[in-house]
Amino acid sequence: MRVLGIDPGIAIVGFGFIDKIGSKLVPVQYGCIQTEAHTPQEERLKQVYESACALMDKYKPDTVAVEKLFFNKNVTTAFSVGQARGVIILAAAQRGLSVAEFTPLQVKQAVVGYGKAEKRQVQEMVRMLLKLSAIPKPDDVADALAVAICHAHSYVLTQKVNEVNGR
Amino acid sequence: MRVLGIDPGIAIVGFGFIDKIGSKLVPVQYGCIQTEAHTPQEERLKQVYESACALMDKYKPDTVAVEKLFFNKNVTTAFSVGQARGVIILAAAQRGLSVAEFTPLQVKQAVVGYGKAEKRQVQEMVRMLLKLSAIPKPDDVADALAVAICHAHSYVLTQKVNEVNGR
Repeated sequence: MRVLGIDPGIAIVGFGFIDKIGSKLVPVQYGCIQTEAHTPQEERLKQVYESACALMDKYKPDTVAVEKLFFNKNVTTAFSVGQARGVIILAAAQRGLSVAEFTPLQVKQAVVGYGKAEKRQVQEMVRMLLKLSAIPKPDDVADALAVAICHAHSYVLTQKVNEVNGR
Repeated sequence: MRVLGIDPGIAIVGFGFIDKIGSKLVPVQYGCIQTEAHTPQEERLKQVYESACALMDKYKPDTVAVEKLFFNKNVTTAFSVGQARGVIILAAAQRGLSVAEFTPLQVKQAVVGYGKAEKRQVQEMVRMLLKLSAIPKPDDVADALAVAICHAHSYVLTQKVNEVNGR
């Protein structure tokens, strides 16, 4: 199963594709989509959408995971991140992909086993679990991989629960 | 010049197309896009996007105006409205349309001439300016027409300023 994890934003969108093969997690491709600050927002949203479409078409994920947005006090940021998130979710929906959402707490729990883990601990676990030589940069990329790992773990769990319940 | 005004949301998106002919404002079409509460959000965003595309392709606006999002204390709502807004702005960008944003203050100022006008006053002015027999329902539709009127007014102003400045 291939999972695409996304850390949405308007300036930087982190993405990470990972394969879950048995109990192993294998990184496929990761990086970020960046847009220029002085570009009109409609153009930036179009760039984010087109890059997301191109990445999904190239790496063909089975499912997509997005971090549930941080309950920031800055509502302007929330709108702006929400808009970027909207066009990415649209790209997924147009390809018939399910979109799972996880809170930062769920992501930390899944990756480190501790919901109050520090950012650095999460990044180090991402590096270890995916056997990377260094922590991916910028933070948005590591965050995208973390939410992908979280989804890969919970996906199996949900399937097992459904099997037990005979679904 | 044809303006499309949008009041974005995930459950209801108000829209209003108006023509500015000389100093006259003529309503072309208005209404709302609605999505069902029990539908997955990715599906709802896809519905909003597809309806927005279909409306833009049918009524071919020259420019789009969206209300700058209300600085709500509810950040969850902000994210959700932001997502819907994102896919509508994307639809506009894909058609090469400029997207103007106005705060509720600017809209009230333009429609009623008073930034602290009551909602009901704004709606009544929308009805009068567009020579409608009744205030359009739900509120989202009247709000969309109000932002369209605001854009139609300011668009002319901006053009005049640019002419004076020799641009």
